[in-house]
Amino acid sequence: MLEKVDLSKTMNKKELKAILKQEGEKLSVLQRACRTSQIPVMIVFEGLGAAGKGTQINRLIQPMDPRGFVVYSIDEETKEEKRHPYLWRFWNKIPENGKIAIFDRSWYRRVLTERFDHHIPDKEIQETFQDIRSFEEQLFDGGYVIIKLFLYISKEEQKKRFDKLLEQKETAWRVSEGDKKRNKEFKKYLKYNEEMLQQTDTDFAPWTIIEATDKDYAAVKIISAVRSRLQYELDKRTQNQPIKKEEIPTASGQFQLGALSGVDLEKSMDRETYKEKMDKLQKRLEFLHSEIYRLQIPVVLGFEGWDAGGKGGAIKRLTSHLDPRGYAVHPTQAPNDIEKAHHYLWRFWINMPKNGHIAIFDRTWYGRVMVERIEGFCQEEEWKRAYQEINQMERHIANSGAVILKFWMHIDKEEQKRRFLERQNTPSKQWKITDEDWRNREKWEQYEVAVNEMLLRTSTTYAPWIIVEGNNKYFARVKVLESVIQAIEERIKSVKETE
Amino acid sequence: MLEKVDLSKTMNKKELKAILKQEGEKLSVLQRACRTSQIPVMIVFEGLGAAGKGTQINRLIQPMDPRGFVVYSIDEETKEEKRHPYLWRFWNKIPENGKIAIFDRSWYRRVLTERFDHHIPDKEIQETFQDIRSFEEQLFDGGYVIIKLFLYISKEEQKKRFDKLLEQKETAWRVSEGDKKRNKEFKKYLKYNEEMLQQTDTDFAPWTIIEATDKDYAAVKIISAVRSRLQYELDKRTQNQPIKKEEIPTASGQFQLGALSGVDLEKSMDRETYKEKMDKLQKRLEFLHSEIYRLQIPVVLGFEGWDAGGKGGAIKRLTSHLDPRGYAVHPTQAPNDIEKAHHYLWRFWINMPKNGHIAIFDRTWYGRVMVERIEGFCQEEEWKRAYQEINQMERHIANSGAVILKFWMHIDKEEQKRRFLERQNTPSKQWKITDEDWRNREKWEQYEVAVNEMLLRTSTTYAPWIIVEGNNKYFARVKVLESVIQAIEERIKSVKETE
Repeated sequence: MLEKVDLSKTMNKKELKAILKQEGEKLSVLQRACRTSQIPVMIVFEGLGAAGKGTQINRLIQPMDPRGFVVYSIDEETKEEKRHPYLWRFWNKIPENGKIAIFDRSWYRRVLTERFDHHIPDKEIQETFQDIRSFEEQLFDGGYVIIKLFLYISKEEQKKRFDKLLEQKETAWRVSEGDKKRNKEFKKYLKYNEEMLQQTDTDFAPWTIIEATDKDYAAVKIISAVRSRLQYELDKRTQNQPIKKEEIPTASGQFQLGALSGVDLEKSMDRETYKEKMDKLQKRLEFLHSEIYRLQIPVVLGFEGWDAGGKGGAIKRLTSHLDPRGYAVHPTQAPNDIEKAHHYLWRFWINMPKNGHIAIFDRTWYGRVMVERIEGFCQEEEWKRAYQEINQMERHIANSGAVILKFWMHIDKEEQKRRFLERQNTPSKQWKITDEDWRNREKWEQYEVAVNEMLLRTSTTYAPWIIVEGNNKYFARVKVLESVIQAIEERIKSVKETE
Repeated sequence: MLEKVDLSKTMNKKELKAILKQEGEKLSVLQRACRTSQIPVMIVFEGLGAAGKGTQINRLIQPMDPRGFVVYSIDEETKEEKRHPYLWRFWNKIPENGKIAIFDRSWYRRVLTERFDHHIPDKEIQETFQDIRSFEEQLFDGGYVIIKLFLYISKEEQKKRFDKLLEQKETAWRVSEGDKKRNKEFKKYLKYNEEMLQQTDTDFAPWTIIEATDKDYAAVKIISAVRSRLQYELDKRTQNQPIKKEEIPTASGQFQLGALSGVDLEKSMDRETYKEKMDKLQKRLEFLHSEIYRLQIPVVLGFEGWDAGGKGGAIKRLTSHLDPRGYAVHPTQAPNDIEKAHHYLWRFWINMPKNGHIAIFDRTWYGRVMVERIEGFCQEEEWKRAYQEINQMERHIANSGAVILKFWMHIDKEEQKRRFLERQNTPSKQWKITDEDWRNREKWEQYEVAVNEMLLRTSTTYAPWIIVEGNNKYFARVKVLESVIQAIEERIKSVKETE
């Protein structure tokens, strides 16, 4: 999902400078107040090589009183540290009450660069994730504030920065062999980073992703993240109110992370190519359908997207050549009385496919974090909790051997309007458009925020989101079929290999 | 730790009958009230074979309105169920609001009998524990009440019951080959059960252990556990108060589980045997000390116990032949100002030994759940959370390769008095006894409750508690040395095997 992050984010330079100054002054006052209130703070800088961690740490500490913080640069373990449990050296560095500890790289080393460089076994990595979550939760429960920042740049930008550093002897040493290798195998290393973010983006210690192409923009986002969190902690503590995990502020407004804004909706396909491709893809899927039955592989396909985004059409093309005894389409509407009397995931759980079958959900359990969130059908803490609950459910189902894909059918607001009007003006399509659709449309921006958050928090290695550029229906339908076929083929291959 | 549970628990028969009747009436009213309040309830019966799950379920449902509950008997998966994710069949059985679902065996099958019968790989077992925790937490967060009961009998009692069932054709079929095997390999199966209890005894779904030798006693404890939990839920919900994980009632008073009451304090040893043994053991440990240095194995030994329980004497005998460059004794007192300004585990973390070294803690991090709990030095939710935090810390250290043992130096109240008086009357020992010791002694019963809970919640496979029968100092010191030697020898053997 990181690849979808809009890295072109920037702001007017003058505006940036003004915000930076303002935020810096606030931070300076805040730091002193946090010291008086004896709040211990840990700020973690992680991210890709040459993303600018050093520079940003420098800018962040400028407004602070140097007696109140310490910066730790976390390199490879020393001989002494190697002889202790992994977390020992970090326990040694937790700040005392009222102090700030800033980490340039941190306890995430093992699951990032070290995992890449030393090929640590997966079992150990999973255990480390668990240890890290426990570590951070214990500190949170003990009153520590943990602010985690992940600096992200693209492969090309990284290459450019490395090349510039390599040009001069004075800076060339800063680019290690590992850095070069990680740039070369960018995709692989990015996967480790994404898994790390998913595994450790908890409510008690959430990650803030910093688009770090524009250094000034990054500086503003970082200082705002730190400032707003400290402000929250100070307010709560001076008012003697409990710190609730689900209330911890995350980036918002202009600093909201966008997966959707990077989507290229110009992608299209002509009718002839479409016909030709569709024919081949459907036949291929028909064949694979019998293969998954033979190999007893279950498949779960979830469809979400804007109203009139093309969910129905895509599902129709997907199923038209399939044996109906081997798949089921489950439309999801507002829950009925019996469904309401159960856990919100129950109605989806009971429809999960058995081995060898395909279950297609037309709208899904993600309603919890979209319509239910926006319409207030559930509490804030309920939809915030749902990201993890959904990831856990999908993980369990994936572990049992299922292929899981989730499609976001994406169109822009103009295209939606065009389709709505077309529906209204075509008698055979009028049933498809209601007043509610127009009302939902008015909440486009709210939905956009919710969808962006959903995509980032629930796109996992075991159940990825696929964003479908949907302005052109031909392109969209082909992409859906191709994605399904590719995922099934990969699974079949790996099943056959382990046989 | 289960082996230490006092299974002789019983009560006056007349009293039992009276309580059963009373509780039954209350339960009957409560069930109806829970239905009106639309509370969904899940009651899980797990435990050893022939512990009486069927009988107890029968007794529990007697006072209930049969339209309000359903009993599920969870056997091996059917063919249909096998084709779905493991948790699917349990999601299908979650009750709707206002109903009670009772499970005779449950989603714990895989980590208990199936693990024993089918030798499921450890990785899968650990994943299942994680899935179970997520499942129960999701249900809890969704408003479900989960009551988990574990029925426990001894190996001998189980054998007796099996033999009785086998005597007659009509009942013989109820004893399976698996049952017989589990009785034969009781210790191994018990370990699986203990691991299960540790891994899934969460604050949102705690286990209640039922001493099931006396069936009437067990029935009363079960009905009381169910009744008190439902009462709590009903009160909170009708008053619109939040259900807090850390407030969920667990067994108390006469139903408190005792690990200490089963300890045989008569164990003793004469001076001559002691001298002879001690000499050999100390030499052996001296040799092993150089071995662990050579193999770079760290060792953590924690000592807790009653005042005058013999901690100091045992530590002295343990270290007298050791090279001081290879071990350190860390006495734990009230925290100083710097320690107070850090997380409560910090001062222990920084003293964890490096590879090849021994760290001995004279009093430990368990102060959190004893003195801090009883004296109110920390909040209730803090010490309740500490069990898990401590287990997590010890697990991380054990995973890094350390041997961890924790000793509870146990004496009875009379013996303590004798030793206190001896200290007062011996000039060279007077410094060892203060007014505070006498004050602590007055809280003996409170400490007993806290110690029992601590032993049960924190004795793990990777860091077991060893209860040392301490009335006789010779016996106690020898047991400490023997335990340390045995644990180190086992570790050395397994390290050499994997080399």
